[in-house]
Amino acid sequence: MIWNTNLRWRLPVVCLLLEVVMIVLFGVFVRYDMDADPHWVEEKAIKNLTTDLENEFYYRYPSFQDVHVMIFVGFGFLMTFLQRYGYSSVGFNFLLAAFGIQWALLMQGWLHSFDGSYILVNVENLINADFCVGSVCVAFGAVLGKVSPVQLLIMTLLQVTLFSVNEYILLNLLEVKDAGGSMTIHAFGAYFGLTVAWILYRPNLNQSEGRKSSVYHSDLFAMIGTLFLWMYWPSFNSAISNHGDAQHRAVINTYCSLAACVLTSVALSSALHRKGKLDMVHIQNASLAGGVGLGTVAELMILPFGSLLIGFICGIVSTLGFVYLTPFLESRLRIQDTCGVHNLHGLPGIIGGIAGAVTASIASIDLYGEEGLADTFGVERSKTSWSPNMQGRFQAAGLFVSLAMALVGGIIVGVILRLPFWGQPPDENCFDDAVYWEIPKEPKSTALHPEDSSFRPPEP
Amino acid sequence: MIWNTNLRWRLPVVCLLLEVVMIVLFGVFVRYDMDADPHWVEEKAIKNLTTDLENEFYYRYPSFQDVHVMIFVGFGFLMTFLQRYGYSSVGFNFLLAAFGIQWALLMQGWLHSFDGSYILVNVENLINADFCVGSVCVAFGAVLGKVSPVQLLIMTLLQVTLFSVNEYILLNLLEVKDAGGSMTIHAFGAYFGLTVAWILYRPNLNQSEGRKSSVYHSDLFAMIGTLFLWMYWPSFNSAISNHGDAQHRAVINTYCSLAACVLTSVALSSALHRKGKLDMVHIQNASLAGGVGLGTVAELMILPFGSLLIGFICGIVSTLGFVYLTPFLESRLRIQDTCGVHNLHGLPGIIGGIAGAVTASIASIDLYGEEGLADTFGVERSKTSWSPNMQGRFQAAGLFVSLAMALVGGIIVGVILRLPFWGQPPDENCFDDAVYWEIPKEPKSTALHPEDSSFRPPEP
Amino acid sequence: MIWNTNLRWRLPVVCLLLEVVMIVLFGVFVRYDMDADPHWVEEKAIKNLTTDLENEFYYRYPSFQDVHVMIFVGFGFLMTFLQRYGYSSVGFNFLLAAFGIQWALLMQGWLHSFDGSYILVNVENLINADFCVGSVCVAFGAVLGKVSPVQLLIMTLLQVTLFSVNEYILLNLLEVKDAGGSMTIHAFGAYFGLTVAWILYRPNLNQSEGRKSSVYHSDLFAMIGTLFLWMYWPSFNSAISNHGDAQHRAVINTYCSLAACVLTSVALSSALHRKGKLDMVHIQNASLAGGVGLGTVAELMILPFGSLLIGFICGIVSTLGFVYLTPFLESRLRIQDTCGVHNLHGLPGIIGGIAGAVTASIASIDLYGEEGLADTFGVERSKTSWSPNMQGRFQAAGLFVSLAMALVGGIIVGVILRLPFWGQPPDENCFDDAVYWEIPKEPKSTALHPEDSSFRPPEP
Repeated sequence: MIWNTNLRWRLPVVCLLLEVVMIVLFGVFVRYDMDADPHWVEEKAIKNLTTDLENEFYYRYPSFQDVHVMIFVGFGFLMTFLQRYGYSSVGFNFLLAAFGIQWALLMQGWLHSFDGSYILVNVENLINADFCVGSVCVAFGAVLGKVSPVQLLIMTLLQVTLFSVNEYILLNLLEVKDAGGSMTIHAFGAYFGLTVAWILYRPNLNQSEGRKSSVYHSDLFAMIGTLFLWMYWPSFNSAISNHGDAQHRAVINTYCSLAACVLTSVALSSALHRKGKLDMVHIQNASLAGGVGLGTVAELMILPFGSLLIGFICGIVSTLGFVYLTPFLESRLRIQDTCGVHNLHGLPGIIGGIAGAVTASIASIDLYGEEGLADTFGVERSKTSWSPNMQGRFQAAGLFVSLAMALVGGIIVGVILRLPFWGQPPDENCFDDAVYWEIPKEPKSTALHPEDSSFRPPEP
Repeated sequence: MIWNTNLRWRLPVVCLLLEVVMIVLFGVFVRYDMDADPHWVEEKAIKNLTTDLENEFYYRYPSFQDVHVMIFVGFGFLMTFLQRYGYSSVGFNFLLAAFGIQWALLMQGWLHSFDGSYILVNVENLINADFCVGSVCVAFGAVLGKVSPVQLLIMTLLQVTLFSVNEYILLNLLEVKDAGGSMTIHAFGAYFGLTVAWILYRPNLNQSEGRKSSVYHSDLFAMIGTLFLWMYWPSFNSAISNHGDAQHRAVINTYCSLAACVLTSVALSSALHRKGKLDMVHIQNASLAGGVGLGTVAELMILPFGSLLIGFICGIVSTLGFVYLTPFLESRLRIQDTCGVHNLHGLPGIIGGIAGAVTASIASIDLYGEEGLADTFGVERSKTSWSPNMQGRFQAAGLFVSLAMALVGGIIVGVILRLPFWGQPPDENCFDDAVYWEIPKEPKSTALHPEDSSFRPPEP
Repeated sequence: MIWNTNLRWRLPVVCLLLEVVMIVLFGVFVRYDMDADPHWVEEKAIKNLTTDLENEFYYRYPSFQDVHVMIFVGFGFLMTFLQRYGYSSVGFNFLLAAFGIQWALLMQGWLHSFDGSYILVNVENLINADFCVGSVCVAFGAVLGKVSPVQLLIMTLLQVTLFSVNEYILLNLLEVKDAGGSMTIHAFGAYFGLTVAWILYRPNLNQSEGRKSSVYHSDLFAMIGTLFLWMYWPSFNSAISNHGDAQHRAVINTYCSLAACVLTSVALSSALHRKGKLDMVHIQNASLAGGVGLGTVAELMILPFGSLLIGFICGIVSTLGFVYLTPFLESRLRIQDTCGVHNLHGLPGIIGGIAGAVTASIASIDLYGEEGLADTFGVERSKTSWSPNMQGRFQAAGLFVSLAMALVGGIIVGVILRLPFWGQPPDENCFDDAVYWEIPKEPKSTALHPEDSSFRPPEP
């Protein structure tokens, strides 16, 4: 297949058009929430608040910034492991996320923060927009190296839309708990991306096989992404939890789960190599599975040892997935999953959803206290019909809805992205920055670098 | 021109001398503000505060740390794009910023936090010192690769002084709003640096042309700087805003502006390349212009769509600047702007200043509420002469003062830096770490690295 | 000596076994503290708290995240300066820290947060666990490149245990102040690690001499570690200080000390090179010594100029240590200190301990106020026997106890680690990732990278 990869008009037109639409829609619909409006001073008087600290800003801003780092540096650099695709990994992730957060502010705003005339935004909306884009970053990992930036922008537009609808069904209709998004972000994002990758299957992708691996320094760049994701994941899973104990508990649980996950990832990575050597792919990815698996239960009473257990399992499952499942998906199911998002986000997302259903089912006044139980599950005191068991079943239903939405949505979006005029790269140029980026020329004369050791070969 | 670049005595003497002066002046003048003094416990009782949270520390510390990262990692790594100047970019930025923050604590302290006998410092002083140094980092970008660390320390000493005076004129005499420093930090820093670069013009700089470009991995290092600047810019623009809604609003506005800016930077970068390819220089720099452009208006009622609009314009102007203006400045005006700070900080800074004047002029009680208007513009209730229109004119005046100070100051400092004994590099050794740094030797035997792919050439 | 470095069974078994033990112990012992428990809502009512902000979470979470970044990105990347040991530096640091924080939660929990039946954890425990692991990361720096991951896990297990006991003696029995851990973390960690390195002395280590240096890009990766350590050190030294002025003061002091330290490190680095060139090793390490040196006194009334002075001294001592002491230790005392932890953590830790003793001795009601003095030193009002002088002597005692524990503990642990079955690398394979990691293959055909400048040699 030969496509025209010169994006000179397509990419600028798409970017400018989308941005103009954003500006118009923001002008019509988006205003500041009371916490970010100069009328806050009057609001304080009305609500009898004695301090500015009660502004939502101070509860959530540090977590927001951590999440922001995860989306842009975390996901961006995690994907720089490919030897010649670093510009695209970081740069396209930057582009799609920058567009996605704007569109997510609108979509999620209409569904969650609409007061009848306006969408009122505050720091929580920013966090939720970042979350939504996180799910696009996950899907990007499945198609990394095989799509053009135009395709990515279209995928972002459609996926953010689907995400918001799915999130609305889960959180508002099924009243499911999913603080860190095991279901809405990770499972949805992964299976959506895998479905798109399946539709975009390239039988001759082996023509660019040589570039699908890493080189020494690209793996170190990827570790920057891994570590910022790993370190800030407690903020991710707690960012939109209730004030007070719920945020606090979500942090402790995620911290524990991630720690356990590192040990089992290392154990399995070594055990599955014939010489017992570790594989950077596992360390970069499987060590994060514990954060994904904790996404639903983070704020629930899973207890620290329960968190360790989930991390333990996720590290094992994820590493096994990289070794056995990814090759199987590619050879048998024709799903080419560049970053192995199935192992990092898909399977652990499902584990997280199941853990959520189980943990909700066994919730009790004993464990939570009466008020604690009501607060944690957001049950209004008058709602007598609520029971933990019912919550558990709704949680399970939420997982199925997410997976169904991902599959159906992924097929539709995949078919759209298959259209031949989006500037996608030919099979032999996949995973290559040079298709879409101006690449620096080789230094003209090595004599310029008399003390340069790393780039100069010994004289023959 | 042949200069002696051996700094063995000059650099140590300058560093030690400056540091000893700092210690003496700190000993004479600097004490803790009440919020950081053990007498805080008594202060709390006097002020009838019931909680330690009312300590300024808790309002500003998270933002401070984000700003700190921007100065040291953000600016430091942004400049590592040069193939052989990474040590100097990160290292000299580290050196000048570490000295600059001390001198800024004193200069800004005397002008803003002096109680008659002592400068009383708290976390806000630390933020302001970082801000001040940010403007030096901007100027550093213009002269990057062409100056010695001794010159940088002298430039820092003088620029911090000028910055503080200029800031005092704007904030205290003209009572201008400039929360994120479009005028005081970015426009001032850029035009100061450009003027210095103009005075230090090197007609034969093309002798080191080969090193003025990037290599593959150096561009990835630079993206670390870009992303941390981009992600934390909402903290930068809100760090010293009023408590509550002002900080909150500044964050939302900056977040929006930066998102829009990425899309237009990408659009223009592709549109201006004959094959539609993206240029890392634009992604690394122009995508940040939206943060600069929002610096003055961040806390004002620009509304989210107004922020998007400013980001939209800044991305376009900045990318156009890189493609058309930088070559023009070099060939016609003899201004060699290594990092293109004119496009990232100069033009967007002016846009920001103008946006501030316009936004202030149209402020109204309708939009802000009575108390909100007074709080936002810091108008004392008794001051009946104040009007939005007047504020707008003072804002515009502030922009002109900043530019004038930058030009005059830049000429003076440039002339001082032209003196021939500061250890500046000769034309053919510009942009080369080896002049000032011990560079690692080439590995003696490639046999040591049997599995090393990246550094070993194939056998001939 | 020939050891079997195939860890296929040993590493997985050790990891899984340790993690299972953790899960069991967490199940038996670890519960949420009231601040992270759903009963918090009832607690609030009992304590008459009007706001969720009084939850310890909001006082300490931003500092916690900064400390977390220091442990995983800071220490991890600081050690990537070796040309072929980046995977191990970042990866093994990740592994040992992930295990260490779990074990530290238990050990420190039993000694400090045990309510009779359970260890109650909150965000302060997470910070303390990170601190404890910080001391292991320090020790790791001394043995970097010469040990297997199995040895590191065993060292972590034992060092965390010793650390917790030592910390208990200092903080609870001697009632010593050591907020940022000059004594408990840095001096203890460094001398423990040096003692282990002494026991593990390898006379033929020069066989892998060629890999003990850096290459150009590895030094830039290391600067990522340096800068995140440097920027977040104020959070480190203030993370567990008292609410309010103590946290605030610790931040200001550390900020000042670190800034001064950069200038003296640069000065000495240049002065000690025959051509006045700077050495990346000094910039990467000595510039941090000011943070170590401030660890004990950070929250005390050292005044900003006192902080500058300590930073000034630490920068000088540390750089001198790298130039003169490290070679001496290796050649005369047979201590092979890979990262020079003696200069960055050992000597500055001792300086910090001494500074603490002196500063405590001269504490006075004049300086602190009556309540301030009691709060700062945690003296109960009834305790009439307390005097600054006595505190000073206990501080000095604390330093000696730490050093003694480090030496004795280091010898025991060193002897255990000398056992021949832990998979340690032979002398000629030290500092080489290839022993324990699957390393990416060399790209098969350079034709795949037509525009790749950096890795392709010119045609002969």
